[in-house]
Amino acid sequence: MYLGDVAWPDLEEYFETESLALVPLGSTEQHGPHLPEATDHLIAEAFAREAADRTGYLCTPTINVGVSPHHKQFHGTMWADAPVFRDYVESITRNLAYHGIDRVIYVNAHGGNVEHLREVGRRLRDDEVLYAIEWMWDESIPDLVDDLFEQNGPHGGPKETSMIQYLDPQLVHEDRLEDARDGGVASVEASETVKHGSRTFFDAADNTENGVLGDQTDATAEKGERLFEAATDQLVQLAEWLAGRDFEDLLPRDHV
Amino acid sequence: MYLGDVAWPDLEEYFETESLALVPLGSTEQHGPHLPEATDHLIAEAFAREAADRTGYLCTPTINVGVSPHHKQFHGTMWADAPVFRDYVESITRNLAYHGIDRVIYVNAHGGNVEHLREVGRRLRDDEVLYAIEWMWDESIPDLVDDLFEQNGPHGGPKETSMIQYLDPQLVHEDRLEDARDGGVASVEASETVKHGSRTFFDAADNTENGVLGDQTDATAEKGERLFEAATDQLVQLAEWLAGRDFEDLLPRDHV
Amino acid sequence: MYLGDVAWPDLEEYFETESLALVPLGSTEQHGPHLPEATDHLIAEAFAREAADRTGYLCTPTINVGVSPHHKQFHGTMWADAPVFRDYVESITRNLAYHGIDRVIYVNAHGGNVEHLREVGRRLRDDEVLYAIEWMWDESIPDLVDDLFEQNGPHGGPKETSMIQYLDPQLVHEDRLEDARDGGVASVEASETVKHGSRTFFDAADNTENGVLGDQTDATAEKGERLFEAATDQLVQLAEWLAGRDFEDLLPRDHV
Amino acid sequence: MYLGDVAWPDLEEYFETESLALVPLGSTEQHGPHLPEATDHLIAEAFAREAADRTGYLCTPTINVGVSPHHKQFHGTMWADAPVFRDYVESITRNLAYHGIDRVIYVNAHGGNVEHLREVGRRLRDDEVLYAIEWMWDESIPDLVDDLFEQNGPHGGPKETSMIQYLDPQLVHEDRLEDARDGGVASVEASETVKHGSRTFFDAADNTENGVLGDQTDATAEKGERLFEAATDQLVQLAEWLAGRDFEDLLPRDHV
Amino acid sequence: MYLGDVAWPDLEEYFETESLALVPLGSTEQHGPHLPEATDHLIAEAFAREAADRTGYLCTPTINVGVSPHHKQFHGTMWADAPVFRDYVESITRNLAYHGIDRVIYVNAHGGNVEHLREVGRRLRDDEVLYAIEWMWDESIPDLVDDLFEQNGPHGGPKETSMIQYLDPQLVHEDRLEDARDGGVASVEASETVKHGSRTFFDAADNTENGVLGDQTDATAEKGERLFEAATDQLVQLAEWLAGRDFEDLLPRDHV
Amino acid sequence: MYLGDVAWPDLEEYFETESLALVPLGSTEQHGPHLPEATDHLIAEAFAREAADRTGYLCTPTINVGVSPHHKQFHGTMWADAPVFRDYVESITRNLAYHGIDRVIYVNAHGGNVEHLREVGRRLRDDEVLYAIEWMWDESIPDLVDDLFEQNGPHGGPKETSMIQYLDPQLVHEDRLEDARDGGVASVEASETVKHGSRTFFDAADNTENGVLGDQTDATAEKGERLFEAATDQLVQLAEWLAGRDFEDLLPRDHV
Repeated sequence: MYLGDVAWPDLEEYFETESLALVPLGSTEQHGPHLPEATDHLIAEAFAREAADRTGYLCTPTINVGVSPHHKQFHGTMWADAPVFRDYVESITRNLAYHGIDRVIYVNAHGGNVEHLREVGRRLRDDEVLYAIEWMWDESIPDLVDDLFEQNGPHGGPKETSMIQYLDPQLVHEDRLEDARDGGVASVEASETVKHGSRTFFDAADNTENGVLGDQTDATAEKGERLFEAATDQLVQLAEWLAGRDFEDLLPRDHV
Repeated sequence: MYLGDVAWPDLEEYFETESLALVPLGSTEQHGPHLPEATDHLIAEAFAREAADRTGYLCTPTINVGVSPHHKQFHGTMWADAPVFRDYVESITRNLAYHGIDRVIYVNAHGGNVEHLREVGRRLRDDEVLYAIEWMWDESIPDLVDDLFEQNGPHGGPKETSMIQYLDPQLVHEDRLEDARDGGVASVEASETVKHGSRTFFDAADNTENGVLGDQTDATAEKGERLFEAATDQLVQLAEWLAGRDFEDLLPRDHV
Repeated sequence: MYLGDVAWPDLEEYFETESLALVPLGSTEQHGPHLPEATDHLIAEAFAREAADRTGYLCTPTINVGVSPHHKQFHGTMWADAPVFRDYVESITRNLAYHGIDRVIYVNAHGGNVEHLREVGRRLRDDEVLYAIEWMWDESIPDLVDDLFEQNGPHGGPKETSMIQYLDPQLVHEDRLEDARDGGVASVEASETVKHGSRTFFDAADNTENGVLGDQTDATAEKGERLFEAATDQLVQLAEWLAGRDFEDLLPRDHV
Repeated sequence: MYLGDVAWPDLEEYFETESLALVPLGSTEQHGPHLPEATDHLIAEAFAREAADRTGYLCTPTINVGVSPHHKQFHGTMWADAPVFRDYVESITRNLAYHGIDRVIYVNAHGGNVEHLREVGRRLRDDEVLYAIEWMWDESIPDLVDDLFEQNGPHGGPKETSMIQYLDPQLVHEDRLEDARDGGVASVEASETVKHGSRTFFDAADNTENGVLGDQTDATAEKGERLFEAATDQLVQLAEWLAGRDFEDLLPRDHV
Repeated sequence: MYLGDVAWPDLEEYFETESLALVPLGSTEQHGPHLPEATDHLIAEAFAREAADRTGYLCTPTINVGVSPHHKQFHGTMWADAPVFRDYVESITRNLAYHGIDRVIYVNAHGGNVEHLREVGRRLRDDEVLYAIEWMWDESIPDLVDDLFEQNGPHGGPKETSMIQYLDPQLVHEDRLEDARDGGVASVEASETVKHGSRTFFDAADNTENGVLGDQTDATAEKGERLFEAATDQLVQLAEWLAGRDFEDLLPRDHV
Repeated sequence: MYLGDVAWPDLEEYFETESLALVPLGSTEQHGPHLPEATDHLIAEAFAREAADRTGYLCTPTINVGVSPHHKQFHGTMWADAPVFRDYVESITRNLAYHGIDRVIYVNAHGGNVEHLREVGRRLRDDEVLYAIEWMWDESIPDLVDDLFEQNGPHGGPKETSMIQYLDPQLVHEDRLEDARDGGVASVEASETVKHGSRTFFDAADNTENGVLGDQTDATAEKGERLFEAATDQLVQLAEWLAGRDFEDLLPRDHV
């Protein structure tokens, strides 16, 4: 069920019988010359809405802007500063508990959000308000990702390109895939900006001229569909697993 | 132009020649038994995207959750606490300045956001970073609103109902319009919760049983269309007026 | 009873039998060429002290500086930034609860404080600490204000001028009333700074050359006395109404 | 000149020729069975207004509530939490700089404010915004205080009692001076709550039953007058000294 | 017992039977031409570790950097801004309560930390989490300090010099003691920066050319040993006194 | 050069010729039944001091307590909440810039600090104050770590055990190594708490009974020495590389 579409009386039964919410989060940031800035939040929303449709769990509207200062040198990247983003997500999530939600899956499609969502999850769990975990679609299907792509990217690479080719093909500039590959770098390692074990870069612009990594010509809509189906399946299973837990078992363990 | 749809190189020309952005903001909150929780952000997004289409100015993705604690007693209302919302909007807006944006219109459809957007606008202007003003669609066409409705609501009343009937009719429960009217109140005044000049209520639930005001049976999609066209026209004019100002003239005046 | 005048043992009986406090708040800011910068806090204090005298309810000392950045271009305007003001008022109010106070009327005479006092009131009520409402004197007697003045101002207009003429006449520059009128504007509307429904101004200096609105020559001490008596009567009634409520009834309603 | 009394045009000359402000701060807190809760802010305001009258320097309205949690066990004590108080004073002071004020004397009569005003002063000086120092009346005349009283208190003792006997005698309960002395303690030392060099107390209530220290029967209005005259003289000299400094000399020294 | 040295299972018995912790805090800041920057944290750690050894109470690792902006003009001084320092110490202390610690002695050797540790102690006590008091070694033995030195300094004077001569003699530049004395000042008073009762200085550099006070040639390791033994004895007694209190008796007293 | 050992005049030359500082950070937290709670900060300090000795670069005192809430269930774990830790490290680092430091290596030995140090580094770099990067010793020598151990842990495993066996052998309980292995888990994966791509654990106690991972019996002091030498060599090279950069090249790149 998508929360945005329904009127409040029609939510009563859900809150009486279920306590799980899927919260999609992405980013609005450069994804190279070939992909739209909405890439991450489109992907997150697609997964969360699909899993909600298949399971009946509640999906909220999407948080479209995330923590993306590392892409700021490229036109149009939007971002919230990290402490502000954490507080915003925490506030929204904490307030969901008012309706009886006690477990949340952050359906996330932006790597830069991960650690912040984990920190928010800790705050809410340590306060015993709510149990919120972060799910990043590609981390649920690492073998398939490895099978499909020589070099998946990650940022703006064939993995994300395939997804948008499948989800919203007219947003992909198919004629720029070679340029995307040739103007970027194959991987972070290829940039040689990790020195003696220390990451000396902070921004995508420290590593790549056009903002992306990997071989975009390796992407197809068919691969996107396989990724989407496989990861949706994982998300569905995660939601069902989570819904089946006792809340007490989700709280922090006692002191030894 | 919608920022979410484009790739970064295609924004270069815009940032070289223009410095205005439209940022849609709404809420996800109860709108009575007949309207969806997304009502406000759907309306805000529709205006911002339409005005952007007509003028060519840049429109960003929508901030879907706003300051709505006053609707919390009704299932599904989402909200960010006010200080957190202000900081989030401020951070996103301030960061837009990195790309050269120096003037923003917050295209808003939720009354509860108004004062917070004004406060953010002050911070940014007093810091001489950027000039951001708040535009609330119905305040741009007060005469038309008065002409069309005996009692416009405001919250969840015929004004907002007409808009959703026009923008996304399948989200309106037409069969509940009478119930919406009969289970709510005609106006805030009718609740008699302003005592001796003091507002003694804080929440919608202090004033109304079902969360809404006004006579919803007075709504039609045709009225919605008239409202949409008229207010879009106002927004277009506002954007053009704003784009035509010198930045210096938008900054605070000097000390007398 | 005025808290500042009494020794602590003489408050014991009050805290045992009553739980209401009147907290006066104003501003220290420009009020045109004819009125003193203390105008707002003098008015707030006068109302709160008078109502306390007539009813026996407790009145605290006055918070003299409020949220007035919009008057900063004029010499002498003092202000606290909005987030800081909210936290200061919240802290003081929250700490009153330590003595058993569970309901507060913010006796306010500065429009710029209103939304901030409402936000503080929400925080305290949602935390179930204390119920605090804002009372603005002129909003309690709108009909009388309309009867007495063609154009009441509001800021530094005949309404406020009459009040100071009555409360502390030597602080009014009677010889400057015509200048005040001629150097200002009749109303915000007259400044034509609301464009297509959007307030494009942030500061008084955006609207008026001398900082004030309305026709100051319309003011008299007699009108001030009528305003003072009428609004004091409203405040007394509000205090008595509030004192008569059960605390439980002042808390937020339950979820539907 | 008292800022609260004047209209903005009459401040223009001051800000053109001077850059000093006196800001009175006190507390609203228990001062034993014999003195009013306003004691500290009455004293601070009296000094600041008198020194302003004698010198022509600008005096602002008073900040009536300070950092007094250590008196909370006694009815009526008001306080702001320390971080909030610091931010409030900082904000007000920082904003004075907008009018050209670059040096401030905090005319203080509450020991509990001292360290916080020092911290605010450091922030403003290190930011090179403004130079603000704290002046506590009794620390300017230690010899006279020692001459006049065996045991000055400090809190609610004969020193403060004498001051209120002089400034506002009807607020002193003369018939309770013996009780004040007999129900309190002679000094903090007498409470024996400093253990092995560590202060083990946090509140006045840890040391004294009625909230005060010293021998209140030693107080007279005549002593109060001598204190007031002597300390006012010190404040006047301090203001004149400070006004004579170059702003550059008030800023932090350079790194060695 | 020193917490840093032990494995977690070996702490179980302590937390079952005791609830006191010693937390050493100092600074890293200039101490003149003759003493190392670590002076304060070396001293604090020495006292805390010694008292822990003698009593069996738990000693934590040391917080090495404190509130020292007033020494910033001299090379190498490190500091945390005061609000940040308070929050850091509060957070660490509050989290100790998770293991059952309910009383803490801040073993402190830096005057600039005192007021901040007191403020943290108040927060924790008022929240009824934990009772934390500050102990400054030299304040526990004022008579001995007075006996041993004409002019003890305080900062970088013979008192601190003697301590380092005893604790870690190779860190003292014995050949610079005369220079230290001759390039500094005898006392704060000698700097004549207290004007009419107001401290007009904020930094050590406002009072002294080389950063130190007192007569360093008056220091010896033997005096250091006497100071160390005497103050350790005081700390041991304080710890035993504190361990013997009921927790209820350490909490704030009830309202009168 | 170790900052804590020297007197301020002896730092003058360093700050005139160099602008790099090594700042060691660790944690104080459980490391299983066999290792001391100080493990991480002992390791960090050892690397930083050794690299400083070999290169002449400045090393500051150690920040002994980090972000370790995930170990709280085990006796003695100390931690600062993440936002507080970030602010503390930021404040100390920012203030180093006052002396001319413009590049910092956080010599870190606690995985839980990594993301926070990265965030602090971003703040300082984006503000163009200072360039601070995080170095984690074991990430500089991944091949050697893989060669030496079947399963390195990481937390409390043979890698860290070897290090303490080498650095401070009497702190290792050699007789508990088998217990450490048998009571813990081989790896995070072995705990099967990553579900469908989502980490469902927040605390070490969610994964392991005794707080540690890996096969501790695989540790020796000789392996510790090899690790220490190899990683020190990496740190020395990193410091020399960093010292050789132009500051301009360390700042964020320009907008494309």
